[in-house]
Amino acid sequence: MMGNVTDLISQDLAQLEQSIDNLLTTRVPFIKEVVQHIVKSGGKRTRPVLVILSAKLCGVKDDRHIPYAAIIEFIHTATLLHDDVVDNAKIRRGRFTANTLWGNEPSVLVGDFLFTKSFDLMVQGQNAEILRVMANATTRLAEGEIMELLRTSDVNTTEEDYYEVIDNKTAVLLSAACEIGAVLGSVDADKRSALREFGHHLGMAFQLKDDLLDYVSTDSTLGKNTGIDFKEGKVTLPLIHTLKQVTPAERETILAALKKTKTSKKDFQKVKGIIERYGGLEYTSNVSKDHIEKARGFLALFPPSPYKDALLDMATYIITREA
Amino acid sequence: MMGNVTDLISQDLAQLEQSIDNLLTTRVPFIKEVVQHIVKSGGKRTRPVLVILSAKLCGVKDDRHIPYAAIIEFIHTATLLHDDVVDNAKIRRGRFTANTLWGNEPSVLVGDFLFTKSFDLMVQGQNAEILRVMANATTRLAEGEIMELLRTSDVNTTEEDYYEVIDNKTAVLLSAACEIGAVLGSVDADKRSALREFGHHLGMAFQLKDDLLDYVSTDSTLGKNTGIDFKEGKVTLPLIHTLKQVTPAERETILAALKKTKTSKKDFQKVKGIIERYGGLEYTSNVSKDHIEKARGFLALFPPSPYKDALLDMATYIITREA
Repeated sequence: MMGNVTDLISQDLAQLEQSIDNLLTTRVPFIKEVVQHIVKSGGKRTRPVLVILSAKLCGVKDDRHIPYAAIIEFIHTATLLHDDVVDNAKIRRGRFTANTLWGNEPSVLVGDFLFTKSFDLMVQGQNAEILRVMANATTRLAEGEIMELLRTSDVNTTEEDYYEVIDNKTAVLLSAACEIGAVLGSVDADKRSALREFGHHLGMAFQLKDDLLDYVSTDSTLGKNTGIDFKEGKVTLPLIHTLKQVTPAERETILAALKKTKTSKKDFQKVKGIIERYGGLEYTSNVSKDHIEKARGFLALFPPSPYKDALLDMATYIITREA
Repeated sequence: MMGNVTDLISQDLAQLEQSIDNLLTTRVPFIKEVVQHIVKSGGKRTRPVLVILSAKLCGVKDDRHIPYAAIIEFIHTATLLHDDVVDNAKIRRGRFTANTLWGNEPSVLVGDFLFTKSFDLMVQGQNAEILRVMANATTRLAEGEIMELLRTSDVNTTEEDYYEVIDNKTAVLLSAACEIGAVLGSVDADKRSALREFGHHLGMAFQLKDDLLDYVSTDSTLGKNTGIDFKEGKVTLPLIHTLKQVTPAERETILAALKKTKTSKKDFQKVKGIIERYGGLEYTSNVSKDHIEKARGFLALFPPSPYKDALLDMATYIITREA
């Protein structure tokens, strides 16, 4: 996260880390060990930061938003645990995944614990409105993950299919994060809707940029390597845009690389070359930027404040980040 | 389930099947396919029946309990999907498991969908008391599954450890099923607590009997084969009771069989022989019967009614069933 944002809410971020530790009570110490491994592995806390900034933008003065910021990180962590099982991922954020260290079984079950514990904590929070937002968001999240799975290696995935997938698997939770802030601040329906939309477009841009980085990110032990999504058969916008224009021979090249169980670096570079030729990366970057423009527009409803500036900065950061 | 019970609530059971279909709305048709496969595979609907009978015992006259009966079956189904991934199970109730048919990925993600959808439906139900009961129960359920996993092949598992595992992984949900009926019927705190305890002891007896059947059930394509739990390294009461008394040589025999990746029928029969010699099966049967006696005792608070009789019949059925 960018320094100016973290400086602005440094106290809240410290409270967040405390809350993540405190709320994670369980009869089974091993659960805490697995969760700590992934939750303390240097994630950017994007969703909690959105809860915090939205709450403050909407006038929340106390620390009511902190537990919700922690809970939304738990839910995100649950999906990471299950994603890594589904994708058979070995490394995340430069560290071994939980499924590599402990096997698939604990990853599945600890993910379940994080889902159920999050609901338990939200129920204890006794905010019916937030419960509704989050129950809906997590259901759509689960649906989005399955939509994505069903589209694996599917070269007939349309742009619309793709947008539906990333809306559900990613944008929904960022949108809910922003809406929680609005609910806690008891702002009017227009402002609440504006923050929900801001989060939605931010989330779309976020995932688009992520999918772009899979093609262009520079290799680094800390960040993501390129080509991981492609090797897992994920058909994302750079490829979808390209597939619309390619020659039959190029299409065959892409198909062959996508269906291979072990895609080589050379295969991937060949596909990347085709995508570059047809402007797939630029197109994706532009769609991502459009979403950021829309997101920024939805904040026009709010008077100037450091929190508004921080949200605008986050929007910029999301499309300019390199990892 | 026994005929007299199903006759008594035949209309509710028909409504339940309808509700299971109707509540399972989703953007992704494939989800419904996977869920239907497992939910319509001849499960005994033990948990929904408990919701229905408890609600009727507590004076519920309308059909408010039906959606909760469906939801509790969804939650149970979610745990079955994830259990089969964790146990790498190929067959359940005489049919291929979802993970066999579609792979681990959809099983994990559709299980997640069932958890989140269940919460969504409960939140829509707007009964804060039921939300609390179920949020707590599902968290303990997830903890119970992990406790069990951590005890895999652990011959130092004590009786107390075992009781804690089965309380959380099984009894908690049966107890919650009964408590939901009490909440819907708005009975007093004593009756609610009595039904909660009834469900708890019923659940303990249920799991004890299940663990017993793993040693004595007669092979059948519809029921469970024997030795499945043992082959998965589950250390249950018949074995725990036996391990307390065996000679060092017998202990070695058991350990060797338990640690084998491929336990043969002969290995299992040898272990079963030792367990029989030390009365492990009889002991487990007695503990199970004790729980049923306790369960029945908690119903004394309720006046005579066909629903009370049906719950008492269920208690008897649970310890006399052969599969």
